[in-house]
Amino acid sequence: MHSSDAHELSSPFDPDEDRLREECGVFGVFGHLDASALTALGLHALQHRGQEAAGIVSFDGQRFQSERRLGLVGDHFSKRSVIERLAGEMAIGHVRYSTTGETILRNVQPLFADLAGGGFAVCHNGNLTNALTLRKQLIRDGAICQSTSDTEVILHLVARSPKAKLVDKFLDALQQIEGAYSLVAMTNKKLIGARDPLGIRPLCLGDLDGTPILASESCALDIIGAKFVRDIENGEVIVISQDGIESHRPFAPRNPRPCIFEYIYFARPDSVVGGKSVYEVRKKLGVELARETATDADVIVPVPDSGVPAAIGYAQESGIPFELGIIRNHYVGRTFIEPTQQIRALGVRLKHNANRSQVAGKRVVLIDDSLVRGTTSVKIVRMMREAGATEVHMRIASPPITHSDYYGIDTPEREKLLAATMTLEEMRDFIGADSLSFLSVDGTYRAMGHERRDNDSPQYTDHCFTGDYPTPLRDITAAERAQQLSLLAETA
Amino acid sequence: MHSSDAHELSSPFDPDEDRLREECGVFGVFGHLDASALTALGLHALQHRGQEAAGIVSFDGQRFQSERRLGLVGDHFSKRSVIERLAGEMAIGHVRYSTTGETILRNVQPLFADLAGGGFAVCHNGNLTNALTLRKQLIRDGAICQSTSDTEVILHLVARSPKAKLVDKFLDALQQIEGAYSLVAMTNKKLIGARDPLGIRPLCLGDLDGTPILASESCALDIIGAKFVRDIENGEVIVISQDGIESHRPFAPRNPRPCIFEYIYFARPDSVVGGKSVYEVRKKLGVELARETATDADVIVPVPDSGVPAAIGYAQESGIPFELGIIRNHYVGRTFIEPTQQIRALGVRLKHNANRSQVAGKRVVLIDDSLVRGTTSVKIVRMMREAGATEVHMRIASPPITHSDYYGIDTPEREKLLAATMTLEEMRDFIGADSLSFLSVDGTYRAMGHERRDNDSPQYTDHCFTGDYPTPLRDITAAERAQQLSLLAETA
Amino acid sequence: MHSSDAHELSSPFDPDEDRLREECGVFGVFGHLDASALTALGLHALQHRGQEAAGIVSFDGQRFQSERRLGLVGDHFSKRSVIERLAGEMAIGHVRYSTTGETILRNVQPLFADLAGGGFAVCHNGNLTNALTLRKQLIRDGAICQSTSDTEVILHLVARSPKAKLVDKFLDALQQIEGAYSLVAMTNKKLIGARDPLGIRPLCLGDLDGTPILASESCALDIIGAKFVRDIENGEVIVISQDGIESHRPFAPRNPRPCIFEYIYFARPDSVVGGKSVYEVRKKLGVELARETATDADVIVPVPDSGVPAAIGYAQESGIPFELGIIRNHYVGRTFIEPTQQIRALGVRLKHNANRSQVAGKRVVLIDDSLVRGTTSVKIVRMMREAGATEVHMRIASPPITHSDYYGIDTPEREKLLAATMTLEEMRDFIGADSLSFLSVDGTYRAMGHERRDNDSPQYTDHCFTGDYPTPLRDITAAERAQQLSLLAETA
Amino acid sequence: MHSSDAHELSSPFDPDEDRLREECGVFGVFGHLDASALTALGLHALQHRGQEAAGIVSFDGQRFQSERRLGLVGDHFSKRSVIERLAGEMAIGHVRYSTTGETILRNVQPLFADLAGGGFAVCHNGNLTNALTLRKQLIRDGAICQSTSDTEVILHLVARSPKAKLVDKFLDALQQIEGAYSLVAMTNKKLIGARDPLGIRPLCLGDLDGTPILASESCALDIIGAKFVRDIENGEVIVISQDGIESHRPFAPRNPRPCIFEYIYFARPDSVVGGKSVYEVRKKLGVELARETATDADVIVPVPDSGVPAAIGYAQESGIPFELGIIRNHYVGRTFIEPTQQIRALGVRLKHNANRSQVAGKRVVLIDDSLVRGTTSVKIVRMMREAGATEVHMRIASPPITHSDYYGIDTPEREKLLAATMTLEEMRDFIGADSLSFLSVDGTYRAMGHERRDNDSPQYTDHCFTGDYPTPLRDITAAERAQQLSLLAETA
Repeated sequence: MHSSDAHELSSPFDPDEDRLREECGVFGVFGHLDASALTALGLHALQHRGQEAAGIVSFDGQRFQSERRLGLVGDHFSKRSVIERLAGEMAIGHVRYSTTGETILRNVQPLFADLAGGGFAVCHNGNLTNALTLRKQLIRDGAICQSTSDTEVILHLVARSPKAKLVDKFLDALQQIEGAYSLVAMTNKKLIGARDPLGIRPLCLGDLDGTPILASESCALDIIGAKFVRDIENGEVIVISQDGIESHRPFAPRNPRPCIFEYIYFARPDSVVGGKSVYEVRKKLGVELARETATDADVIVPVPDSGVPAAIGYAQESGIPFELGIIRNHYVGRTFIEPTQQIRALGVRLKHNANRSQVAGKRVVLIDDSLVRGTTSVKIVRMMREAGATEVHMRIASPPITHSDYYGIDTPEREKLLAATMTLEEMRDFIGADSLSFLSVDGTYRAMGHERRDNDSPQYTDHCFTGDYPTPLRDITAAERAQQLSLLAETA
Repeated sequence: MHSSDAHELSSPFDPDEDRLREECGVFGVFGHLDASALTALGLHALQHRGQEAAGIVSFDGQRFQSERRLGLVGDHFSKRSVIERLAGEMAIGHVRYSTTGETILRNVQPLFADLAGGGFAVCHNGNLTNALTLRKQLIRDGAICQSTSDTEVILHLVARSPKAKLVDKFLDALQQIEGAYSLVAMTNKKLIGARDPLGIRPLCLGDLDGTPILASESCALDIIGAKFVRDIENGEVIVISQDGIESHRPFAPRNPRPCIFEYIYFARPDSVVGGKSVYEVRKKLGVELARETATDADVIVPVPDSGVPAAIGYAQESGIPFELGIIRNHYVGRTFIEPTQQIRALGVRLKHNANRSQVAGKRVVLIDDSLVRGTTSVKIVRMMREAGATEVHMRIASPPITHSDYYGIDTPEREKLLAATMTLEEMRDFIGADSLSFLSVDGTYRAMGHERRDNDSPQYTDHCFTGDYPTPLRDITAAERAQQLSLLAETA
Repeated sequence: MHSSDAHELSSPFDPDEDRLREECGVFGVFGHLDASALTALGLHALQHRGQEAAGIVSFDGQRFQSERRLGLVGDHFSKRSVIERLAGEMAIGHVRYSTTGETILRNVQPLFADLAGGGFAVCHNGNLTNALTLRKQLIRDGAICQSTSDTEVILHLVARSPKAKLVDKFLDALQQIEGAYSLVAMTNKKLIGARDPLGIRPLCLGDLDGTPILASESCALDIIGAKFVRDIENGEVIVISQDGIESHRPFAPRNPRPCIFEYIYFARPDSVVGGKSVYEVRKKLGVELARETATDADVIVPVPDSGVPAAIGYAQESGIPFELGIIRNHYVGRTFIEPTQQIRALGVRLKHNANRSQVAGKRVVLIDDSLVRGTTSVKIVRMMREAGATEVHMRIASPPITHSDYYGIDTPEREKLLAATMTLEEMRDFIGADSLSFLSVDGTYRAMGHERRDNDSPQYTDHCFTGDYPTPLRDITAAERAQQLSLLAETA
Repeated sequence: MHSSDAHELSSPFDPDEDRLREECGVFGVFGHLDASALTALGLHALQHRGQEAAGIVSFDGQRFQSERRLGLVGDHFSKRSVIERLAGEMAIGHVRYSTTGETILRNVQPLFADLAGGGFAVCHNGNLTNALTLRKQLIRDGAICQSTSDTEVILHLVARSPKAKLVDKFLDALQQIEGAYSLVAMTNKKLIGARDPLGIRPLCLGDLDGTPILASESCALDIIGAKFVRDIENGEVIVISQDGIESHRPFAPRNPRPCIFEYIYFARPDSVVGGKSVYEVRKKLGVELARETATDADVIVPVPDSGVPAAIGYAQESGIPFELGIIRNHYVGRTFIEPTQQIRALGVRLKHNANRSQVAGKRVVLIDDSLVRGTTSVKIVRMMREAGATEVHMRIASPPITHSDYYGIDTPEREKLLAATMTLEEMRDFIGADSLSFLSVDGTYRAMGHERRDNDSPQYTDHCFTGDYPTPLRDITAAERAQQLSLLAETA
């Protein structure tokens, strides 16, 4: 059903259309007078993980309160009136970029249900790979699904669990789902955090003067001055209550396999994920890139803002000066929803402009963190040439993306991934650069601090580069998989 | 859970706060290119049955489309863009004044669910008297209730029915619910109308050049030029499909017992309900009132607008001239949401003003259709005196309201019903009139065309006057009922 | 210049498109703690005089505060926050239906200017007949006109007056303007009311426990419980200050000549204008109409709501019963902004529906207050026939409208006035009635309490019926006047 | 008068409250089918010059069209409907941060007036230093000022000029105003650009395939692919018409004296102003700063984003590595309007977070472009220490700001300028750094390419650093100036 029960987000002319997008960030607070205000701040720090919608559910000792809105956290959750309605000392919250389910209000999380054992709220970062399969079965059994998000499936599984206690119902539900998930949930007594058996999406525990905090990234602890305690481990469920923090391990032990894209792309550079500084990793990706693809040039220019740390690393390693050869218009964020047709044709520089003084007459090395469809690269290479660059060399601080993601990253269909359909030379020709190089998979692993990728037991979830999916893709038909495998063969 | 996921209706300073309120109107179209535009118009004609929210669901042959909004039909559903989104040749719609469930967007009807047999949408006029009991059981069985409306209970019962076909699931669900309901539902093949075993709320069938229409009242047929065919009978379920119109009778046959308030108060005067002109009935209530309570006076003044037909009848029967002695400000509708405190104290005439030229120096008979809390009557009697009336006689064209309703009318708690706590003389004193009379129960039945009320098998649902509830009140606790019975004893 | 600096009112599908429209109501308070709240209420009572925009200016002893909004008074000026911003014990306000100037925010009144002698705010009901001529001269002299309303011309004349005191500047400005005006103005010390030399538009003085009030109609005194003191006389300027109330008479004495349409059509029935009850006048128009055009019929049906008082008078005089044979949908007010094309074609009864039970099989006399374009009459006559009326006789409680207005009433161009282009029989044929009659000019004057119209010195401004304009029409070119005179000849 | 005739901008919790703010950017197009769409894009590129409001006026050959809105350009002027209303081949536009006049809609530019010679629209970057003096005189002469902006004064002077032609009236008006102004104006035939006698604010001429363009900065030419032609010279007025481009020089010749802050702070780094790359100047400020204030440290950290170019220059000159030691949250822009009181107390890192991995255990040199109140510096120094920095050295790439601006920069009152009230050591102590240094005035001039400041005829407007105001400050009373001089003495 298509439904417009509330103001939908109009489909914007997206300045970031050539980027991968993360779907979510989660946050939770147990036992603080300002629980929902802290949650609003935590979500604000996690805003880069999802800009389409945000929601908070609090519990005030008697009632659950919910506020869910389309738009940025700061647009809605900075208002005193909203925060006052979210009374109570427990709260969980969510920011969302939709991968599954339309962006309508009832898909916005946290989801809530009044269950037999009491109220239960949950929010989710990741994507279930057997959600459609489970949903069909649930509807066959008489369940009514109000949203189109995979998270509601979890709620139904909890509601229908024969276990007596809510925490046990939740653990029961986890046994039935597959894929990537970092969950933050709340009952009227407990705050719960859970990470899938491989720990694909991040989740960490913090402490604000004795108040436990759960957050997708450590930068959300920093914003409120909370201390980082530790990452939730892969396959771990922690239950926070008045009695303290319990840890459950409902799954057989496995090696962790976090998503490598959190480092390359998603997490904020000031976050520490899996014990590693994200900024430091990105600089090292630039260093490795400089080692693998040394280039004779006059200036290192990052594609702002994502390419900056790698460019700094590349410049330091190569000794070529780092300059802001491209200036970003910071007001583009939510603007220019419907430019006129004629204007689109002008090739307007809405988002970026060349800094001619740093480019004219120079051999330019452009550094970007990844290459998805290549549409932005085409524009930027052309912009460099128009500004007088004598040579333009594109260097990508990660390997070619050849496979789609099914774990919470909004990747285009495979046929729109440049590296899934073109050879390196075809790609270079497409973007119009004088040369194009990617960082190797092993170079990427070196930047992460490993000697190389362990192909028998890979240290990271890296199927976008390798096709090596870490879990079965149950919702994908055999036919689709066959096609994907053949595509894989082609591009390998 | 309290939830503000969308714009809630702020609680207005209600110019009609001393009125009973209806909760809903329903409408449906099967097989017309403009199905949703016709539904919008039908709902506009039914706007008097609910002003807080409106919704339409259509089916375009492949997908169900839903638009639900707080506010008036004309505010949202007159826009071409909205109607265009509601594509398809089948549509059902609903206007709502909330009695159960907060007025938040997700309580706005029609409700929709994706069931095993396909999509199913339903909207409801009335109130279930065992909804809470059923809801508790459903939650215990793992159902997730998203709304707080009793209508969702019906949806869950349909979803969980073991029957194979959607229509059979729906009939199965009807066996489990009690109370008052006129339902309009839609599958991807059928339009369904259902009326409870007593036919408490109205529902009729119309025809627009071959297109079947379902509507709460005949005035919603008139607006689109459709012909009235017949009322749906009490306990009847009609199923409209490509194959024509089938009638089901899932209940044991009973005498109909429609709600008498539809005639006295709710239905539009130009509607024909149960074969009777509502305007004609109201005039006759005035005629009977004149016969029972003849008064020596100079002028008959209606309390606008509800008292007008009875006042015309009263004037014609008594021979005393009918004059507009009170003028209503038609712009009050949705205005003056937050008047200042000082201004409230001024006793401001926001809604009504005396027409001094018709009142000064005269003996005035005021005619109103009913007396609920009496707060408006106090103001109007005082206004008449301040405008120079020498005598003010209040005549009410229905019996004293002594009992709350549980079938879809928003009555105050019993202790706020003037007639539930005061004697006639106390009421007269409270409102400040020189005399006060009500129409008798039998006079009311005479105006309806009966000799008298048949106490063994009453022709109408009339518990507000008599305490004679037509169905068990299962959700009301024994304790409450005991209390109500004792209250009843007091006022009898 | 076309300008959209603020939210303009979108052009609605106007349920009253076949009505004359008044352009304004004015109100003022001097010396009350709740000056702006009282003004908001007064404007609410005057809402029938203009629904497109409203504004209030207050003075708090130091600063003038202004709030001007498109929409109804109750939509904006009932909010505590708005009223609190309008601090002070003096306030003036305005409701507007635009005749001159587009409805954009900066045309909304009161207008304000910071003059050499201090702040000056003014609002205006009426229309100047030499505004364009004056405006051209002002611009030639270097004035900058921000609005397109004729009221701004007054402001410029005040600003440019060589007199020393603001009141004298204002009197100076009045000498230069022609046409109809009731003005309420405010300096930082005084509240001023002024009526044009003929007193075409109404203005009265009230008293709320010692606080002087100015208002277009007495109903705006009633709403706040103020007493009516007297009408401002034609050509009178009253100046209210701490020192009391002064009366100025800047013009040579003339007989008053108020607009007759205030009685027939514009003023609220509960207002007393020029010492006459508006309701009583309308009833007498009905009585005279019955005398002039006696009809053999079964039922008298008013066109709601404007025809009701005349219909009551007609019914009382003729002895034929008065019935509500047409029911009005009160929710139409601001709804159905963009109905679909197909739906327009259906001939939808958005505003009115026949009350079939009072019409079927009957000879119907329809009573309306006036006939403008006739488009509504066509629909209503057809509706009566479709509801089964055997005969439909249209009776209009005023004379044929043959001339446009230039004094603040929004009349169509002459060629769209039915009575300006058709004979009586052509009109009858056009609207489809069995017979059509208008009240005569002398009958109209009799209803007003005169023996007949005094053609040498007419008691009322009545050019719409007679072509006898009471002032020179300086802005109308000679050519246009010639044309109008010839048209006049044709229709006489 | 305080007025809320339209939606005012609520006063935000400003993440940039410790910054200087520019008031305006201007743009104009002559003779292009997409004139207003190009203007919208140009304004978008100039958005950094004013974020509170934007407006465009176009001329379509017959009528002037105006759209003015509070908010960002992209919020309103990217919509096709808005651009379509702005028909015509000539357009001028404006972005505004208000320094004089409240931010209400009628202060938003371009301003327009219907003058004797035709329509005239004008917009303004800068500030007049005799506007109040002129305004008082104008009002005394009967002018009505609708806005509180100084730009309206120009409009009145044009309107009242005795000259016959609009261009001559405009030149006449320029003779009467003093201060800083870059004006873009439009008649129904001509596009006009004017720069004050000293050329304090920037204005340049561009060319888009033959279409002349006026813009505050060259980056607004780049966005639409227009070529930079030249700067408008100080004291030059250029008039663009069908007949080509004329240049007028209504003032006695003087040396130019552009505002030095455009280079240090306001202009976008990719703009070329006065023939110099802004980015290049900023890098050189960093280079000079490194030469003047060499520091033994481990890492150079820019305060983002304004300190980045100077930090790159500093790092290159000093050989100490440049790292992003502070990460900016890019979503802060318009968010967190009303944070709760408790949360403010937490010292929340809404805008910035330390990048601990680059700071912990290190001696940090922080580079910022300027120091205004110092409130942000306090927070950032503390943030560095909390992140583990062993030493924190603050280096400012411009001299101490000791004087307020009256030429279009929103500087705090002098007593809030840190450098106007404290010694260097007091400032260091206040911000909590281990050391603090500013670039010298002569170092600043060296970075601009001069040997030193020419004190007899300074090359730039630099009174904020020197107290040397380039024009008389007529609106400032003698008393105020005296006080300022004494303050100046104190801080010298």
